Formats: sequence, structure tokens, C-alpha cells
Amino acid sequence: MNIYGADYYPEHWDRSFWKKHVELMKVYGIEWVRIGEFMWSVVERSDGEFDFSLLDEAIELLSENGIKIILGTPTATPPAWLVSKYPEILPVDWNGRVRGFGSRRHYSPNSKAYLEYALRIVEQYASRYGDVIDVWQIDNEFGCHGTTYSFGNEDLVAFREWLKEKYGTLENLNRHWGTVFWSQTYKSWDEIVFPINTPTFENPHQMLDIYRFMSDSSIRFLKSQVEVIRKYSSKPVTHNFMVDFMDLDYRKMARYVDFVSWDNYIATEEYDPLRQSANHSLMRSLKHQPFLVIEQQPARVNWRQVNENYESEYLAMWTKQAYLNGAMGVMPFRFDQIRFGAEQYHAGLLDYYGRPTKRLEAYSKAKSQTPGVITPKPEVAIFFDYENEWIHRINHLNRNFKYWDAIVDIYKAVKKLGYNAEFVFNEDEVEGYDVLIVPYASYISEEFLEKIKKFEGPVYLTAMSSIKDRYNWLTERMPWHLIDEFGIEVVDFGGIKKEKGYLFSQCVNSLFWKDELEVFSAKVIGSFENGTPLATVKNNRYYVASVLDENGWKLLLSENLKPRVLGKGYELVNVERNGRELTVVLNTLPIENNVYIDGSLHVLKPFELSFVG
Amino acid sequence: MNIYGADYYPEHWDRSFWKKHVELMKVYGIEWVRIGEFMWSVVERSDGEFDFSLLDEAIELLSENGIKIILGTPTATPPAWLVSKYPEILPVDWNGRVRGFGSRRHYSPNSKAYLEYALRIVEQYASRYGDVIDVWQIDNEFGCHGTTYSFGNEDLVAFREWLKEKYGTLENLNRHWGTVFWSQTYKSWDEIVFPINTPTFENPHQMLDIYRFMSDSSIRFLKSQVEVIRKYSSKPVTHNFMVDFMDLDYRKMARYVDFVSWDNYIATEEYDPLRQSANHSLMRSLKHQPFLVIEQQPARVNWRQVNENYESEYLAMWTKQAYLNGAMGVMPFRFDQIRFGAEQYHAGLLDYYGRPTKRLEAYSKAKSQTPGVITPKPEVAIFFDYENEWIHRINHLNRNFKYWDAIVDIYKAVKKLGYNAEFVFNEDEVEGYDVLIVPYASYISEEFLEKIKKFEGPVYLTAMSSIKDRYNWLTERMPWHLIDEFGIEVVDFGGIKKEKGYLFSQCVNSLFWKDELEVFSAKVIGSFENGTPLATVKNNRYYVASVLDENGWKLLLSENLKPRVLGKGYELVNVERNGRELTVVLNTLPIENNVYIDGSLHVLKPFELSFVG
Amino acid sequence: MNIYGADYYPEHWDRSFWKKHVELMKVYGIEWVRIGEFMWSVVERSDGEFDFSLLDEAIELLSENGIKIILGTPTATPPAWLVSKYPEILPVDWNGRVRGFGSRRHYSPNSKAYLEYALRIVEQYASRYGDVIDVWQIDNEFGCHGTTYSFGNEDLVAFREWLKEKYGTLENLNRHWGTVFWSQTYKSWDEIVFPINTPTFENPHQMLDIYRFMSDSSIRFLKSQVEVIRKYSSKPVTHNFMVDFMDLDYRKMARYVDFVSWDNYIATEEYDPLRQSANHSLMRSLKHQPFLVIEQQPARVNWRQVNENYESEYLAMWTKQAYLNGAMGVMPFRFDQIRFGAEQYHAGLLDYYGRPTKRLEAYSKAKSQTPGVITPKPEVAIFFDYENEWIHRINHLNRNFKYWDAIVDIYKAVKKLGYNAEFVFNEDEVEGYDVLIVPYASYISEEFLEKIKKFEGPVYLTAMSSIKDRYNWLTERMPWHLIDEFGIEVVDFGGIKKEKGYLFSQCVNSLFWKDELEVFSAKVIGSFENGTPLATVKNNRYYVASVLDENGWKLLLSENLKPRVLGKGYELVNVERNGRELTVVLNTLPIENNVYIDGSLHVLKPFELSFVG
Repeated sequence: MNIYGADYYPEHWDRSFWKKHVELMKVYGIEWVRIGEFMWSVVERSDGEFDFSLLDEAIELLSENGIKIILGTPTATPPAWLVSKYPEILPVDWNGRVRGFGSRRHYSPNSKAYLEYALRIVEQYASRYGDVIDVWQIDNEFGCHGTTYSFGNEDLVAFREWLKEKYGTLENLNRHWGTVFWSQTYKSWDEIVFPINTPTFENPHQMLDIYRFMSDSSIRFLKSQVEVIRKYSSKPVTHNFMVDFMDLDYRKMARYVDFVSWDNYIATEEYDPLRQSANHSLMRSLKHQPFLVIEQQPARVNWRQVNENYESEYLAMWTKQAYLNGAMGVMPFRFDQIRFGAEQYHAGLLDYYGRPTKRLEAYSKAKSQTPGVITPKPEVAIFFDYENEWIHRINHLNRNFKYWDAIVDIYKAVKKLGYNAEFVFNEDEVEGYDVLIVPYASYISEEFLEKIKKFEGPVYLTAMSSIKDRYNWLTERMPWHLIDEFGIEVVDFGGIKKEKGYLFSQCVNSLFWKDELEVFSAKVIGSFENGTPLATVKNNRYYVASVLDENGWKLLLSENLKPRVLGKGYELVNVERNGRELTVVLNTLPIENNVYIDGSLHVLKPFELSFVG
Repeated sequence: MNIYGADYYPEHWDRSFWKKHVELMKVYGIEWVRIGEFMWSVVERSDGEFDFSLLDEAIELLSENGIKIILGTPTATPPAWLVSKYPEILPVDWNGRVRGFGSRRHYSPNSKAYLEYALRIVEQYASRYGDVIDVWQIDNEFGCHGTTYSFGNEDLVAFREWLKEKYGTLENLNRHWGTVFWSQTYKSWDEIVFPINTPTFENPHQMLDIYRFMSDSSIRFLKSQVEVIRKYSSKPVTHNFMVDFMDLDYRKMARYVDFVSWDNYIATEEYDPLRQSANHSLMRSLKHQPFLVIEQQPARVNWRQVNENYESEYLAMWTKQAYLNGAMGVMPFRFDQIRFGAEQYHAGLLDYYGRPTKRLEAYSKAKSQTPGVITPKPEVAIFFDYENEWIHRINHLNRNFKYWDAIVDIYKAVKKLGYNAEFVFNEDEVEGYDVLIVPYASYISEEFLEKIKKFEGPVYLTAMSSIKDRYNWLTERMPWHLIDEFGIEVVDFGGIKKEKGYLFSQCVNSLFWKDELEVFSAKVIGSFENGTPLATVKNNRYYVASVLDENGWKLLLSENLKPRVLGKGYELVNVERNGRELTVVLNTLPIENNVYIDGSLHVLKPFELSFVG
Repeated sequence: MNIYGADYYPEHWDRSFWKKHVELMKVYGIEWVRIGEFMWSVVERSDGEFDFSLLDEAIELLSENGIKIILGTPTATPPAWLVSKYPEILPVDWNGRVRGFGSRRHYSPNSKAYLEYALRIVEQYASRYGDVIDVWQIDNEFGCHGTTYSFGNEDLVAFREWLKEKYGTLENLNRHWGTVFWSQTYKSWDEIVFPINTPTFENPHQMLDIYRFMSDSSIRFLKSQVEVIRKYSSKPVTHNFMVDFMDLDYRKMARYVDFVSWDNYIATEEYDPLRQSANHSLMRSLKHQPFLVIEQQPARVNWRQVNENYESEYLAMWTKQAYLNGAMGVMPFRFDQIRFGAEQYHAGLLDYYGRPTKRLEAYSKAKSQTPGVITPKPEVAIFFDYENEWIHRINHLNRNFKYWDAIVDIYKAVKKLGYNAEFVFNEDEVEGYDVLIVPYASYISEEFLEKIKKFEGPVYLTAMSSIKDRYNWLTERMPWHLIDEFGIEVVDFGGIKKEKGYLFSQCVNSLFWKDELEVFSAKVIGSFENGTPLATVKNNRYYVASVLDENGWKLLLSENLKPRVLGKGYELVNVERNGRELTVVLNTLPIENNVYIDGSLHVLKPFELSFVG
């Protein structure tokens, strides 16, 4: 598949506009559309009163014109009549307050009434359009707006069931939750509640299970929709994941979709190409397969404090960058720009009057400039794990530390040295990569610990790695199971703000965390300013007793990843094509850009993507 | 009327103190008092148990001594017995939480029980004191402390009624609210709820109606009180409006009072004379008639983070400034300074021991220095509209933009050039003004759009003006109905922080918003740094594609408003007196001040008000 | 008593670990342990199902090994089964929201069900271990995490009872609460509610009573536990107070314990020795007797944003500093460091693997370096009062002013001049001190006002002192009852941020508050920049019309407290030993330190404590 299209909302228009829209799609080469994911109240006007005429007609018109369709199940927006009839559908926030009707995602996936109605409408969609359409999207952006979390009565009932299944007995739960601390021992499953508005810190073992349960609740809901669809359709199923989003275990969720899609919105205030790249790479790593950018930010959005516009050529560049990172398609959100609704200020490819914008032209032209589906060579593997994100949220030593941000710094360091970086998870094999980095990974599965030991290339381990068990207990000794392998033991630690350190005799910043090491059989290659070891190496096992920033990582890694590139404002990916090793390089700047790769100068035109070598 | 007095609270004192108070009033020339607006629990001690003896005696004593009385209806503070009996009276905040008893304004005007009791006590007041007193004040500071808004059950019932009246059918409401977006279509009026604690952005069309409904609820309550009073009294009715206050449509509310009063508290951390002046002018513009400063900040208040004191001469200056801007009276809040209650740190004209302060002396002396009631000449009209304030609050492109603050910048620019500025509303005529400015007015009524076209003098239009319809939809093309008139079309836009621009070849700041213009038949007179047009003119129709600050406006306007003044720390107003054109100038500084007006030097004494020319 | 030990949690370990723990205690000289204060669910596994086997065995093992025991009653952590059965036990926060189960201190002391169960478990403890153990600790850190305050139904019932007892009649309450202001008059006790989520400022007289009632609720609960224990035990009773903690009237609470204990955690981001010293001194002043540091921060904690570690020698220094300030013992929290629970990152004296840390060694060595129990000489008395802290929280002129912080500045000034500072309360005698400072004391009892007048040494009075009565009314004239004594009257005042002032012709900062004085019979010794008096003296009565910082106080006090010391990073205390006047000096720095005392140079080793003179 190579998906070139846009998101489209026929229900927002009088049918009289549709023909003009489809004509413009054809003129500008829009071959795919995603539709239908917020249409529940359109197709089920009241309880059981189905009216598919609008959707039928839209699908017919699009199909007649050769436009392929991704159809979204409409479960992200339960209609007013449903919420009015079953108010218990509404989610409950961290403060115990109901989240009301009036926007979107106002449901808990643990509500029985909601599930019944949601699966009924999905079955209606699936049975009607089974193989008529081309791809299914389940729901829309699970977990958006903090909706992974709901703390209502039905959620609590489901949580207790989840716990029973996991722990079997209360005795087992009490032991692993350490409930003897602060007298929290449970005598009955019904005594277990969500820790809402507690006077002080919650039980960290309970909290980790809450994060897991909430993620599982969404995954289970996705899975139940997929099962309904599978009864009627052989078409691929996907879901639109989000940027920098860590509330859901996407790795686990990805098992249940045929391919990963995601919504590429700019995550930072200023566009940061390598952070977006890290997200692309993460999405690719979830299944280690090509992915779809199912929503691409076209220019300004509507949900920022200040919604700045972007020159239309940026849309072309973002499209090329997606392909550079292994995408199989890019769909700007949205084709039609609308005058009403909560997103009325969001840019589209048409203007408010229905005229094509420069954005549409730029996107249209980008098609010929994309390299087709790329497979980056496996070079550097960075261990990542969603559960570790949750562990870092709970009860940590330094609340300023952000796991994903720290990972992105490493990703950038690898990329700037001129190498590909991918993410590996506990279940993944690591053979085939040149270098393995296992940063800030509080809990690592026993299986992966074995893989670390067996890995033949250099391994980089850091502070906070392998210091916890799967129940979020600190381990007796640290790094657990790796003391001999790395030749050091962490005997104490503390939070820090920022301390100067030295690595290979150069200055670096150490941040957030400071281990006190006992060095058995390793060589000290860096130290904190007070002289205690900051980094060690034993054979090719590196240990860093703190958190480094991007520059620190570049320095540390350069011993095994020789710097290949000089320049700025570029992104490159190494590929093998027809048996040749090539580098694909993208100029992420709107100006001409000089980049030296492996010693050769390359002059890149504004936003140019080029094959090199 | 020329009202020279103070606010007074006889109920806060043992009757033995009253005579001394009245004596001091007479010594210091206090001719008016406002009393009674927080006396409910004094006169209705429990349900139906009325005791007017205190109020009777106070009114008798004051009247005997020739002191005129403004009597406030006491509905801002329902007594404990009433709240205890009908807890549903209490308002509900934006988070759905009841706002409790224990301060003031703890009622929803949509509560049936409250309305019954409130109108009963008003009728008691009105029937007893009908024409005995001189002016009626309704309630106290409607909307203060965010109490315009209440989201309880009775409010919801009233909101649904309000919607039925406005839209007639649900189909009509669904269309104008664009409920097809995010599947929000309503099948029954009872499905409509307030969007409390929604996961994300609310429906912007619904939100605008909520702002309107809430404002209307207070206005309807005021009106129902006025109707009761009118049965018993021929005396004028007023209400005390507030500084920089935008939750209520004061223009609409002002229709139901005989004259506008307002409470002149310093709105900013440092006293900003022209911001206070803008408020004076706004209050004057509501009915285009003289107004009363019914509460004047005397020195320190009690509700700031840091409650600074002011030299007593400031009170004299503030008094003169009110008259300068068209006031017909000024009443410091409050005559007596009290040792107890939530405002115990608020300054008064007496001290805690009952002795006259320097403030009383200064206020007393200011009487001879005020110019009497002034009528500023119509010169510059600035379009203003409360509904636009609410539109800007909802769903905007740049959440940092503040409508009223941006308007005040224009007001200041006009004043500093040496001209009078007034505000005009959709219903107002604009003939008679020299210049018309229509800034940031997202929705403009069709009638006013016609007035703009017919206006013979220069018109200034800006970004964001005429881009929305009355339902808060963006228009298909912008500026709606004015494209030909101004010779430009807005084809795209985005938020900005601050960009440099050029106007008449001079540097200016453009802020918040940046239009992309297509220029048909206008001349470009300014540009953004990237070269796109910042300002255009076609005949005498000026368009500004961004937001300018005070200096930018001075530059832009100077083509039609020749700068007349050199200096700082002054405020001037142009008047016609006995057929002569005069300028009244006030030195707002506590030091001697040199000001050049029309080329002539005027040396002003500290805080001096002077007629010139 | 000289208590040398640590806090210990046998219930967190399999019994197989205990012997090793006790052995290590003996090796390192841990002679005391505190145990049991979070054991409720261990000893009462479900309603009435008591199982004391664990506690019995632990006590037996410890006693056999000669280790003395402080036993905590476990009422800070009601078990899940109890909360599940009686959810009304849970406290309700300032916003009216229930504070949930899942951490600790989740109870209101006004809950009848809670009280019944709490006193039952206390009776179980007391009857079983009466004189078996050595000291009783009641509950744990009353008021921690804001739990002094609860606003539920049972709290309200108890508050009304408390009010009835205090005021007798509603008429009396209405008068002292000034309820005539804003129409708040109560006709029935049942109309009185907590002012939850009020639209604006609460009644300040009611608020002061709420602060008093809440403090009294905890004190009453402590007292009821003490009464139960007294039936079975002759051993001393204590409670662990907290650092910088002002929600409870510790002075009042201290009456009901045999000695004061407190938990010495670092209160500020950087360790500030003299602030910790002020806390030590405050704790000593509560009963003017030696106190116990029952929890001593060992190194890093777990509840900060960034939990930094400390070199082990700091623990030794903190121990010495406690003794320097009159402690009779220091117990690091905690002996055992645990891998689980909400405090898993908190340091202990052992490591996670059960090995002794450097901290244990350092603490062990500190024993020989402590001076034994010290009695500081009475030199400077600073008036302090918990009710004044609450008065300052309510309705103040300058919300940036913090009473205790301002007091600490004075404490530091006195200490840096080379003198001892203690705190005196309304009930205390002031004879025997050389200097009396009465700073920012809004309400002073009539008895203490008399003591001020009779005091022969210099007295320092400040702005805000004696301006309120016991009901939180401002007084008619200020400083109430002291106008003649000090020869000045405060005739007006206002908040300030920071103004330059002059004192003895030197520059000082005046902060927060500025009095306008009328000077009758005093000499002006300082002035604000605008020339009005900042400080006066009449005989040896000093008045400061503002708030001074540490440097300002050093300057002001130096007329009567001749500066004795030159240096930094030290703390000294003057004592009399064997008839000789000595100075004990502690180097609070980890480096060698030169300090001049009375003109002589003393070279102090890192963290050295030394007797001088």
C-alpha cells in the first residue's frame, strides 16, 4: 500500500458540495480518504433508529470516483441520546469528578451500557460495509485528552476483576503491593478502591497496576471491536496512535491491529524534526513494519495557546520526512476546512470558501518527491518500554525527570552521529543491531536481561536501569542481574539538578540522578566533579551513573559510532537498495543547506530529500 | 443631579454613633449617601419576620439632616435562614461545584425560590420607601466574583427555555450549533446539558449562547426588580457596574436603568489613568449620558495581593477625573471605616476610631475643583460589543489575545493624540463623529455593517473584524460584506507572538494575529517583515492585518488625527462651552507637569484640572 | 533520658531478618527504637480480630537485647476494613471533597465511628504493653498533609458544639463574628456551615474560629488517647511534632504530653542551619524543657521534587546541632531501608540489601561528639503565638507576608549577633530575659500586654502588633494598650512591596507593611524614604513601623545586643556550666571554618562542635 490522501467529513456539508469536493480530490491526486469516525449521531439518530443513507451515498460517490476509503468506527463520540439514557457511561477523572458531555471521548470503556451500544454500532458498520471499504480504523485516538483514565464505579468493578485474575488471592496481592506499609492490608476485594484525593503519596505498586489496568481497558475495547469487524470483513484494521503519547502500552495494543497508524502533530512549540522523527521511529518499531500517517498536521491547528500558521511547503517536507522514516502513506487532516465546531480554526487543504489552498498544491506536488516505502537498516537499538514510563511517573526520586524526553535525547544523539535508531521492547530480538542502549529502564524482563548478556556488540546501561522488579519494588542490589556483567554495583543514589562531569576528559552535564558506584572490575571512563565515577566500561559494557543530555550521549557513543556528518537542519536514514548501501538525507530547513556526509559536501535545496552515496 | 456623597452602613454601628456620623457628613459636605444594599438579614430576620426599625430610623435621621439617599435593594446577600431553607438557591460553578454560604452573591438568579424571596423583599423596600428616598440601586455589582455564571439544575432548566425561545425547533438549534461535528446532535431538549468538565474543547456555538444566557439571566432579574419598584416609586433606578468587567452585556442591561452608575476601583497594579478613563468613557457610552461613580476607591482596598495605600490627594484627583469624563457625581466607598468583616482592611473616610481622615478632607476640598457635568465632544468612535468579548474567549486562534485590553490600547492612542474617544455599539448611530474605528469585532450586525459603509469619515478596520456570524461560525469570506469596501480579502491567517512590521516606513509591533491578504484595489501602507501586507487603505478605508499596540495605533491614526499634545501624565477632554471649543486638562501626577497643547505650554500644578484654549 | 536510637519497622520484614537487625543495632549502639505507629492492620486484621503476635515477638526480641522501646499508637492509618465499613471516617478537604483511602492520615478526629475504633485499638495497645515499653508516642504527625482540616458533616456538628460552648448564645456569636456585615446573621445554630467554595472572602472572625476548632479537634483526640494510656501505664507520653508547622497550636497541645518530640526534616530547599535551629528552639520553648528529635532526616527523603542525597557526615552534624539546641536525643528515620511502599526512595541507616551504610557509621560516631543535654541561657525572648499565625492567614493587608518566616529572620539576627533566642507565649513569664521582642503579633492577651509594660529590659514592638482583639476585630486605636508606653500611635497603614528606609543613618529594607505614625513622646531613630518615621524609641521601648529583614534586625538590635561574632557557617549557644559562662559553637560547614567570638579566633574542623570561653 502507498496511501496518498486526506481525512474528509462529508457529514459536515450539504450533499450539494460533495461533487465539487470529489472533483478537487481527483484534480489534486487525493486517492484515499478517511471518513466516518465521528458519525454516530448521524447514522444512529436515536436508540436503534439507524439511517445509513448519508454514509451510503458518500461511500458510493467516492468509490465511483475511484477513491479508496478508510472507515472509522464512530465510538469516540457517543451521542447525546445515549449519554442522556445511561449517564454512567461518562468517565470519571483523577479527582473523582464526572467528565461531561459536550466535546468528545466522553465514555469509559468499562461501562457495560456503553460497550453494548458501541459494539452494536460497530456491528452495524461492519456488516454493512464489510469489504466495501478498504481499511478499518477503530475509534479515534484512544486516550486523547487524558481519557485513558476513568475512576467510576464500573471502572472499579473491572479493576477488581483484573486484580483477581492477576493475583488470584488477596494474600498474594497484599504481598506484592506491600500493603503492610501504612497499614493498607486488604481483607476483602471490595475494600480495594482507587486512591482518589488521598492526603499524600499513593501505594506505588497499586499505582503501577492502575496504569496497566487502564491501558488494558482500552486495548480490550479495541480488541472487542476488531473481533466484531473480523466477522464481516477481511480488510486491514488499524488505529490512529498519537505523538509523544505514553498513557497506553502501544506495543501491546499494536498486536491487535494489522498496521500501525498515527497522527503526526507537532509535539513541541517550535518544530523539532528529530523529535517528530523519534515518534515516527517509535511507531515503526511497534511492529517493525511500515506505518501510516493517518492524520498529518497541515499548517495551523486550533488547540495551542498560539496557533501559528506554516508556509505550505512545510506540509510537503513533513510528508517526505514520514516516508524517510518508513511510512507507507500520509494523509493531511483535513481535506475540507470548516467554519463551525470546536475545530473551526484548524487549517485544511481547502479554504473556508471551498477553494484549493497552497497547502493542497504543495501536498499534491510532494507525491513525486517522496522516495516510496523505505526500510531503514538496523543499526542502533534503544530499549523502550511503556511500563517503565509509568514506573517513572510514580514515586520517583526526581520528579523533573521525564523518561521519554531523556530517550529522545539519545535518539537525537544517534541520528546526529549519522546512524539509524530504532526501538526494541522486552519481547524483541536484538541480534542484527550493531549497538544496544538500555537507558533508564527501571524494570527489564528476565528474558531481556538474558538478551543483554548475550548481545555481542557494545551495550550501554544507565542509572535507573534494572533497579526494580515487575511489582515496582526496588531490587535488593543494583543493577539487578547485571552487576557482574558491568563490573559495578550501585550502592547508593540521590537526585540532582545538574552537575558537571567529565567523560573521556571532556566536560559533560549530568542530570537528574546520581549513582554512587562501587567499581569491581570495570574501567572508569568518566567522573562527577567530586571525583566519584560517572561512567565505566568492562569489555564493551558501558555504565553511566547518571542521565546525560544529547551532547553527552554523542560523546559517549562516539567510541563505537564514529561521527559521520557535519551540518545542521538535516535528517538522514541509511538504507540498502539493490544491494547498495545508501543514505537518504532530508533538508528540514526552508533554505539551502550544506551538509557533509562521510566527508563529502552535499548542497541541499530547501526541504530537499536526496539519495546519497 | 450632581451627587456628592459617600457610601454608608448605619447597620454596622450602634445607633449611638449615628449622630456623630451625620454631623461629620454635614461638616464635610457629604450631601448624599448610599445605604441598605446588604441589609437583608437586618430587615427580614427570619422568613417573613420583617423589622424595618433600623432602616426607618436611619433614613429619618439622614433626611432630617438634608442628606439625600440612594437605597440599595439587599438581594446580593440572601440570609442564612433562606439558604438553609432552600439550599438550591446557591450557585454552581464552572466545575459543577456548589458555591457556599459565607461571603456574598451566593445565589443563582434562576432559582425559583430565590426569585420569590428576592422580589418579596424588594417589594417591602419599595412599598415602604417608594418616594421617600431619592434613587434606587438594584442589588450590588451583578456578576462580581464570577457570579454571572451558575450551572445548577434550575439554571439548566432556564437555559433550555431560553434556547426554545431562541431557536424554536431542535432542528434549528442543531443546525446553528453545528452539532453534526463530533456527533453532538440533540433529539430532545432534555439532552442539552452544560459542558461541565468535558474531556476537551466545548462547542463554540453553544458556549456563546451560554455566555448570552447567563448575562440575560442577570438582566432579567434586574428588570424584574425594576418592575416591582416602579409600582411604588417614581425615583430613578440605577445599578453599580464594575471596572474592566465583561461578563455582562452592560449595554443591554443599561436599557433598564435610568442612569448608569459604576464602581471606580483601580483595575491595574499601578494606577493607569487612561485605563480608568476608558472605563469612565465606556460607562458614559452605555447610554451616552452622564453617569455616577457610586463607589470610588478611597485609598487602599482589601482584596489585592498587596493592598497599598495612597496619599489622600489621589482621592481628589480621581474625583476630578470622573467629572472630566462626564460623571455627574462621585461617592467614595465608604464613609465609615470598620473594624470587622471581610473588608476590615478597606480604607474609609473616617478612621477606625471614627475620626476624620485626610482623605475626607481631600474629598471635601475636591468639590470646588470639579468642573461640573461635562459633555465631551464627539470625535472618535470606537466600535465595542460585549458579545465580541465572549466570542474572543471561546475557541480562539490565539488565547493570549484580550479584546478589551486591545481596545484600551486604541483608546489610549486616541487620547494621547489629543482627541476624545467614545464607544459605539451595534445599535448606535455613528454620524457626528470624525473617525470610526472598528477593531477586532468578530461579529458585526448587518445594520452596523451598513453604517460603516455609509460613514463619510475615515474608517479603520482590523484583523478579526467581520469574520464571524451571529452564531459564532466563521464566514465564508473575510471581512464579511466589507471586501469590496476595503479592497482586500483575508485568504488565510494564523496566530503570532510578536512580529516586526513597517507602517508609513516606521517600525511597529504586530501582535497576536496575522492575516494573509489578497489586495484587490487598495494601497499597501505597511507590511510585515516577510513583506506581506500589514496595512492597506482604499479611499479613507484603512485595514490592519494584525493587532497593533498603542504606539502602532498612534502612528496609524495620525494621518487623520494630527497629534496635538506633547507631554505625559495628563488626560484631556475637548468640550464646547458657551459656543467655544475648550480643552479640559487634568494633571494625573502628584508633581508639577509641563504639557504642550496645540503648541502652547501649560504648567499644571500637582493633580490640577484646568480649562485651556 | 538521653535517647540514642532509630525508628524501626519489624512488620516490614520477615521475622527471619529481625535477629540480624538487632545485632546490627547492638554493634552500632542503637539503644532505642520507635516502633508500631503504622501497625493497625497488622494487629487488628479485621473488626475485633486482634493478633498481637508480631508485635509481642518484636518487643520481646528487642527487650531481650536491651533495646528500649517507644511504642506508637497506630491511629494515623485506619485499616481498609474500617474505612470500607464506615466511609464517613474519611476527612473532607477545603473544597468539600472527600480525601480517599490509599495513603495515610485518612480520618477526621470528629468522626464518632473513628473515635470508637481508635480508642479501642489504643486501649488494646495500652493494656497489653502498659509499662512493658518505655515511652508512648500518640498517633503520628497530627496535621501532616493538611489533615488538621476536615469539613465533613461530623466536623460541622462538632464545630457547632464547639461554638455553642464558646459563645453560649447565637446573639453573642453574631456580635463577635460581625455577621451584620454582608447579611450573615444566624437565627439558628444549624444555619452555620463551613464556608466552602464561597464566591469571595470569608468572614474573618468565623475563619479564626475554624482554625482554632480544627486545632482543638486534634488536641482533644490526643488528649483522649493519653487518658486511655494513663489507665494502664506510668510511662511518659509524647507526640512527634513537625518542622515549620503552624496548623496546630503546638503550645496548647504540648500541655498534654510529658515531653515534646519532633521530626527534624530539612524545611528548605538548601539546608539552612539557623532555620532548623529556630525550629529546635521553638520545640524547646513549648515546654521550656529538653525535647527529643524522634525522627531525624538521615540523607535523602522521598517527598521532594528532587530528593538529593547528603554525605553521611551531615547526619552527625544534624545530631550535634539538635543537642546544641537542647535535645535529649536524636533518632534517625529509619533504621531499615525498604524496597517497597510509598517511601521506598527514603534513605535509612541500612541499605536495601540490609548492609550498614556510612550513615549508620557516622551516626554511631556522633554519639561521642554530642555535648549531652544543654540548657541555653535565657537571653532574648521572642513572642510567638500560633493563633497569630492563623490571623495572618486570614484577610490580611499583604498576602505575601508570612508570619513564621518573618519571625525566623529575627531569630537569625539574634543568633548571628551571638545570643540565644527563645520563644515566649502569652502565658509565659518574661522575667529573666535580657531583651523582649514582640513582632507582628496582631493579637496579644491582656495579661501579656501587662508583662510588656512591666518588663525592665528593652522591648521591641513592630507594625501589626496589638492591632486586633481576640475575635480578630481590628482595635479602635493601635497599638492597643501600648500607645502611651511607646509614645506613638498608628493612624493609618498600607501594604508595601519593598521600600528603602534609614535606621541609625544606615540603609535598611522595609517590607510588606508601612504604618503611618503619629509620634507623641518618642524619638525617631529611623525613617522611610519619604521621611515618615520607620522606627522610634521612648526610653527603652522601640517601635518599628514596618517589617525588617535579618540585616535590618541586626542593626536595630545591636544597640542592646553588642555583636559578638565574626564569621559564617556557625551556630552558637551560650550556657552556664559549673558556674562558668561558656559558648558552645558548631561549625555547620563541611570545611574548616574560622570564627571570631568575642574577639578570639577559633578554627573549627568540619562539622566540629566545640566549647569556648
